[in-house]
Amino acid sequence: MTTLDSILAGKYPAKAHARRVAERLHASGYGRHGIIYLEAQKTRLIEDNDEAMPFRQRRPFFYLSGCPLPDSYLIYNIGRDELTLFIPPIDPEDVIWSGLPMSVAEALRRYDVDQVLPTSEVNATLASIASVDGSKAAVFAIAGQISEETKFHGFIEMNTTTLKGVIGDTRVVKDGYEIALLRKANDISAKAHIAAIKASRAATNEREIEAAFIAACIAKGARDQAYHPIVACGQNGATLHYGGNDDDLTDPVTKQRKSSVLIDAGAEYRTYCADITRVFPLGGKFTLETRHIYQIVLRMQTETIAMLKEGVRWEDVHAHAHRVAIKGLLDLGILRGSEDELFDKRISVAFFPHGLGHYLGMDTHDTGGNPDYGDKDTMFKYLRVRGCLPAGSVITVEPGIYFCRFIIKPFIESPETNKYIDINILEKYWNVGGVRIEDNVHVTQQGYENLTTAPKAFEEVEMLAS
Amino acid sequence: MTTLDSILAGKYPAKAHARRVAERLHASGYGRHGIIYLEAQKTRLIEDNDEAMPFRQRRPFFYLSGCPLPDSYLIYNIGRDELTLFIPPIDPEDVIWSGLPMSVAEALRRYDVDQVLPTSEVNATLASIASVDGSKAAVFAIAGQISEETKFHGFIEMNTTTLKGVIGDTRVVKDGYEIALLRKANDISAKAHIAAIKASRAATNEREIEAAFIAACIAKGARDQAYHPIVACGQNGATLHYGGNDDDLTDPVTKQRKSSVLIDAGAEYRTYCADITRVFPLGGKFTLETRHIYQIVLRMQTETIAMLKEGVRWEDVHAHAHRVAIKGLLDLGILRGSEDELFDKRISVAFFPHGLGHYLGMDTHDTGGNPDYGDKDTMFKYLRVRGCLPAGSVITVEPGIYFCRFIIKPFIESPETNKYIDINILEKYWNVGGVRIEDNVHVTQQGYENLTTAPKAFEEVEMLAS
Repeated sequence: MTTLDSILAGKYPAKAHARRVAERLHASGYGRHGIIYLEAQKTRLIEDNDEAMPFRQRRPFFYLSGCPLPDSYLIYNIGRDELTLFIPPIDPEDVIWSGLPMSVAEALRRYDVDQVLPTSEVNATLASIASVDGSKAAVFAIAGQISEETKFHGFIEMNTTTLKGVIGDTRVVKDGYEIALLRKANDISAKAHIAAIKASRAATNEREIEAAFIAACIAKGARDQAYHPIVACGQNGATLHYGGNDDDLTDPVTKQRKSSVLIDAGAEYRTYCADITRVFPLGGKFTLETRHIYQIVLRMQTETIAMLKEGVRWEDVHAHAHRVAIKGLLDLGILRGSEDELFDKRISVAFFPHGLGHYLGMDTHDTGGNPDYGDKDTMFKYLRVRGCLPAGSVITVEPGIYFCRFIIKPFIESPETNKYIDINILEKYWNVGGVRIEDNVHVTQQGYENLTTAPKAFEEVEMLAS
Repeated sequence: MTTLDSILAGKYPAKAHARRVAERLHASGYGRHGIIYLEAQKTRLIEDNDEAMPFRQRRPFFYLSGCPLPDSYLIYNIGRDELTLFIPPIDPEDVIWSGLPMSVAEALRRYDVDQVLPTSEVNATLASIASVDGSKAAVFAIAGQISEETKFHGFIEMNTTTLKGVIGDTRVVKDGYEIALLRKANDISAKAHIAAIKASRAATNEREIEAAFIAACIAKGARDQAYHPIVACGQNGATLHYGGNDDDLTDPVTKQRKSSVLIDAGAEYRTYCADITRVFPLGGKFTLETRHIYQIVLRMQTETIAMLKEGVRWEDVHAHAHRVAIKGLLDLGILRGSEDELFDKRISVAFFPHGLGHYLGMDTHDTGGNPDYGDKDTMFKYLRVRGCLPAGSVITVEPGIYFCRFIIKPFIESPETNKYIDINILEKYWNVGGVRIEDNVHVTQQGYENLTTAPKAFEEVEMLAS
C-alpha cells in the first residue's frame, strides 16, 4: 500500500469539519448552542423513466459526514459536540433485488461520526434535542435541502440562509486528508492523460481518445468524471468549452492529421476532483507554430506557479501570466507595441480571455473565491478567485493562448486595437487552435506543492504521442 | 459505408411519427384539428454547481422531431400536417465560449420537419395558428413539460393528459429506421461485450471489465449507456440489480479467481437503447455447475425466442421459460417432484424471479406493455409486458437462473415448498451466483429477427475469455 492509500484507508475527518463549521458560525456572531442539519442527495428517477438519475452526493452533507449514501441525514449538536448520521433502513422488498444495504454497525466503522441511526429516527432525535436544549438552540440548515417530513418543533430559531455560505467558506482551506484525496484524484487523472495521449497514436476520432481517458479513470477506481471532458483536435481547441469530442482527427480536405489535441479532463475520486489540461501533437511532432505557443504557455504556467505562497494576491499572479503572454506574442510578432501599453490596453485578453484558475475541491469550480463577474476590466472579469490565497487552498493554474476568431475579431476590427495585432503573422497561427496547460496546486506557508504529475515537458509529451 | 449506416445517414422519420400519433389521437375520439406541442429537455445545472447536468433528451420530443438539442420546442399542426421545430437562437456571449450553435438552415437540412424557427418565435406561431384555427383546434401537450412562458390563448381546449400515453402506445411498434437504430446500438454493444470479455483475462477487479465496456461504446460513437451497467463476478451475479462493479475478481480467502462474470450492459445510440446480458468464465473455463446452469438458461432463451411471432401471448412465452427451467433443475436434482406440480406451485420462481423481458426502444424499459405489478401470481407479477406482441415491437428475451439466498430461503423454510428443493444438491450451486442471457428481438409477421450479435454459444464465450 502506498503512503497515499494508507492515509486514505483512514476515516474522512467529518467530525473535524463539523467543528470547523461550528467555529465559523460562532465567529459570524452565532451562539455556541444549536444544531447543524444536513440532508444527503435523494435517490431520484430520470424523467419519464424507471432508472435512477446518476447520483452525486451533496457536498455540504459529505463534508460533515464523509458518507456517500443517498437518502441519508446528518445532525451535528454543536453544544454537545455530537455528530449523528442517519442511514436508510433495510427495505425487505429491495433486498431481493439489490442485496443488503449498509448496516448501522458498518457505517459506524466507516464514518467519523459519534453515532449512526436509521433515518426513521431523525424526528425523534430532533425532538429529544429540542426538549433539552431547544430554548437556546437554533437550527442551521440549507434552504431547498430540507424534507417536508422533518419536523423542527421546539427550537428557538430556524436559520436556513447562513449555513451554506459558512460551509462553502470553510471548504476553501483543505486538511491533510482532503489534500490526499485531491492527490489521488490527480494521480488517477495523470495516468488517464497518459493513456489518452498513447491512444491518440491509433485513434481516428476525438471520441477514441476520450474513451481511453474515461476507461483509465474507471479502471483505477474513479467512476465519475469531475466534469464533462474536453477532447479538442486542431481548431476545436480554440473553443474554450468545446465538448463535442466527436470530430475526425484527419482533416477531410487536406487528408492530413490535424496538428494537436487539447484534453481538459479530470477524475472525481470520493467526491474530490482533479482538473488537468494537456496538449499533445498528433503523430508525435508539434508544428512549429504550436511549439511556439506551447512554449509561451508553459512559461506562463511555470512562472505563475513559482509565485504561489500563502498570502499572494491572485490578481497579481493572473496579471503576471498576461505579461508573459505579451512578451511571447511580441517575440513572435503577433503583437506589436510596448509590453506596458499592450498590458494597459488589455490586448492579451484577445488570446487569453479567461481567468488563470479557480479553487478546486469537492467541486471543480470550488466554493469561495469571491469572483466579480461584473468587473468592467476585461482582464479580471472572468477571474474566479479574487484576493489573497490562504495556505491550504488548492487552486488550478491554467494559462492558455487561443486563436479563436470570435474572440480576436473585435480586436482586429476596432480602430483602437487593430494596430497592436499583425494580421499577416497571426494568419499562420489559426491552425494552432488553442493551447492550455493546467495543473492543480496546493498553496502552503512556504510556497506550494504541485499535485499534478502528468507530463508536460515538450519532449516528454512528444515522446508519449509518437 | 455499411447498409445500416447508409439507412441511418437518412433523416429520422419524425414527420411520419407525428402523423401516427395524430392518427392515434383521432382513433381515441379526438377531432382532426388541433396541435401537438412538445418541449425538449432544458439545460439544467447540477445542484450547487455551475456544470450542466448530464443531458438526456425527452423521448416524446425526440420521437416527433429527431432533434437532440436541449431547450428546443416543437409544434405539429395536425389539420395542416405541418411540423415546426424551434431551436435556440445565437447567444453572442455564449459563442465566445462554446462556438456557433446549430443554424436554422442546418437544422432544416438535418431534421424531418417542415420548418425551423428560433425559439423566440414559439408564442407568435401559436398565436398565428390560434387566430386561424383556434375555434376548432385543441392543444395536446404533456403536463409538467410546459414552460410558463408559453402562451396558448385562443385555442378551444388545452389537453395535457392524453398525449403522453398516446405517444407511449405509438412507440411500441417500431419502423425500419428505429429498427436500424436499435440494431446499431446492438452492434456497438456486442463489440463492447466482446471487448469486456477479452479485458477480463488481465483484469483484477470488476471495474476494469466495466471500463473496457464503456470505452468500447464511446469509441464507437455511443457516448451514453442505456442504463447503469451491471458487472457482477461470482455470487454478486445473484443480486439482480447489482451495480457496485468494484469487487475483486480473486477471492480474498481462497485466493482463487471467482467462477464467472455476468455483464448486463448496453449502449444508447441516438437515444435508442441496447440491453444485453452475457455470462462468461474467468480464466476461460466454466465450472461444472455454472456450465449446467448456463445450458439450462441458454435453452430457456433459445426455445422462447423460437416462439416469437406477431400475436404470441407474452405470458405463454414466459411460462414456457419456466417449464424449461423446471425440467433442467429436475435433471440436476435441485428440484424434486413432477414438472406440472412444480409449475403449478410456482417453485421455479425461487430461481427465476423476474419477468422474461420488456419492450425496448428509446427507453430501456420502453413504453407500453401494460404490466400488472399487483398480480397475486408470483410468476407473472414482475412481467413487464402482458398480452399479445404486435409485429414491429422489440422485446428483450432474458431468462435467468439465480442462486440468491434472500430469494430461495423462504422456499426452503416453508413447509409447503421445502419438499420440492434438495438442499444438499443445491449446496453445490451457490457459487454459480447467477446466469442470465439476454438478447433484443424484433417481432415480425413471420417470426422474429434477433438484433443481438454478441456471442453466447458456450464454446465461443469460453474461447473469448481464455
